[in-house]
Amino acid sequence: MGPHPAVADVRRAVRLSLGDLAPGGLVLVACSGGADSLALAAALGFTAPRMGLKAGLVTVDHGLQDGSAARALDVVRLAPSLDLEPAEALTVIVGRAGGPEAAARDARYEALSEAAHRLGAVAVLLGHTMNDQAETVLLRLARGSGSRSLSGMPEVSGIYRRPLLGLSRTRTQEACAALGLRPWDDPHNTDPAYTRVRVRHDVLPALETALGPGVAEALARTARLCRDDADALDAWADAVYEASAGPDGSLKVSALEEVPAAVRRRVIRRAAVSAGASASALGAVHIAEVERLVTEWRGQKAVHLPGGVGAVRRYGTLIFATDNLS
Amino acid sequence: MGPHPAVADVRRAVRLSLGDLAPGGLVLVACSGGADSLALAAALGFTAPRMGLKAGLVTVDHGLQDGSAARALDVVRLAPSLDLEPAEALTVIVGRAGGPEAAARDARYEALSEAAHRLGAVAVLLGHTMNDQAETVLLRLARGSGSRSLSGMPEVSGIYRRPLLGLSRTRTQEACAALGLRPWDDPHNTDPAYTRVRVRHDVLPALETALGPGVAEALARTARLCRDDADALDAWADAVYEASAGPDGSLKVSALEEVPAAVRRRVIRRAAVSAGASASALGAVHIAEVERLVTEWRGQKAVHLPGGVGAVRRYGTLIFATDNLS
Repeated sequence: MGPHPAVADVRRAVRLSLGDLAPGGLVLVACSGGADSLALAAALGFTAPRMGLKAGLVTVDHGLQDGSAARALDVVRLAPSLDLEPAEALTVIVGRAGGPEAAARDARYEALSEAAHRLGAVAVLLGHTMNDQAETVLLRLARGSGSRSLSGMPEVSGIYRRPLLGLSRTRTQEACAALGLRPWDDPHNTDPAYTRVRVRHDVLPALETALGPGVAEALARTARLCRDDADALDAWADAVYEASAGPDGSLKVSALEEVPAAVRRRVIRRAAVSAGASASALGAVHIAEVERLVTEWRGQKAVHLPGGVGAVRRYGTLIFATDNLS
Repeated sequence: MGPHPAVADVRRAVRLSLGDLAPGGLVLVACSGGADSLALAAALGFTAPRMGLKAGLVTVDHGLQDGSAARALDVVRLAPSLDLEPAEALTVIVGRAGGPEAAARDARYEALSEAAHRLGAVAVLLGHTMNDQAETVLLRLARGSGSRSLSGMPEVSGIYRRPLLGLSRTRTQEACAALGLRPWDDPHNTDPAYTRVRVRHDVLPALETALGPGVAEALARTARLCRDDADALDAWADAVYEASAGPDGSLKVSALEEVPAAVRRRVIRRAAVSAGASASALGAVHIAEVERLVTEWRGQKAVHLPGGVGAVRRYGTLIFATDNLS
């Protein structure tokens, strides 16, 4: 008799995700003790040795809840029974920058990256599911940005991998139940103070009621298609930038005139960031103002960009330079 | 004293939308009598003569509600007071194909196109607002498709123009109130049997509550950015198709291998439709199966596509032809 179908699904997802790794490498799973990452941890412990890989576990203690240290220790103690070794609890100090969710995330990834480097891991697996992806797309929608933003979380990003983006949260819960594993229910996951929790408990059910079942799958599919679209446009923009940027990072206006708006704006963004503009603070309004130096030229002055960079048009060239006026 | 700000907003939107039309042309407004299209009609009647354009009105009687003929007549009778002439009620017979909403829409556009042709109109204005656009994006999201689908309704499509996509529904209601116009409340607009109504009354408010105000604006902005992305990718795919398609519509595999997936799939779609595949029935799964003839070639048989077209790989070429096997 084979494993429970849900267990088999999670194992298959892990196997597919790790297929390109050379034997002997160490793969870590970032496990909170919740159903998603617990099912993922069990599948990694089962799958890795069969692929000639080593497997370990890390869990992050954010220090934000009573008993978080004890819980992290419970997860570490469970690891050997899942054939995961080494197993470590990483204690982090969560700052305040960007709000509570962003600050916790930043601290978590910093600790995970540090641990991966120290332990010599070739990959760190994250337990995000199709439902997390759907929530991410809805959160991004509200920002009003384009394909890149709607493409959600990538399956692979540096050392991080998300094998479960094609599986539902229900499936990981079933896998845990079938394996006799008891997941931890993070009270933060039901705290309506968090935007993501409100999306999960109010918006997605409203969408399911209005549009019918399958909304999470559709949103995850939207994310994949938007990612492919964004990758293609970035490749086009990179080619235009490489072909038209001068040694000082300036851009020929003629090269920008002959490409579609979506490509033009990406080239401008890349040039601005290369010149030192703040990638995170650079918004669509800034890019649009620089774009008007190309498409609606009537002798405008320099455009000031966040990060102390100015863009100005001189003799058919867009020049990006440190902005002495701001 | 100038006009009420909402009235000024609607007039400005109409003026911007019509800026490219040569003097003397006739512009029609499609007016249901609801707030959006009534505010639009009033703005067209005011603006057109100042731009040297002629302006008329058409209203569609779908024959689906008691009193619809009388209401259409009321709208036509109002037209002269808005400086709109000619004014006509168009009676249509709504079929059943694609469900009640799609059938009514098909019948409406057919009647509008016929009237525009008969009256010699150069443009037909539609009253869709930012809110309609936001609802459209959410409806499309649930289909799980990419940038083109998320780009919502275009500002210009053939003779149709949507000047109000940047204005909220509230703004058109304010404009009607300021002008002393009494809009008709279509009972269909609150009938939860319609998917769009459920999105309007349940999903968008849930999104606003979860994510904060401005969701409709953000969704409309998402639509514009996705439209630019989709336009750029279509242009790329067209260029690849023109450069690589043979006289028989076949595609060189090598040309498809070297472009990003988002472009490759668009080229395949275009070739399939050119060969006679049904554009509406051709889904992402079909395109993906043809794509595997390029990216995962292991001697597969022909792929059968809706519309009786088959795709097969022979000697480094993808051939699309009438499918004698289906």
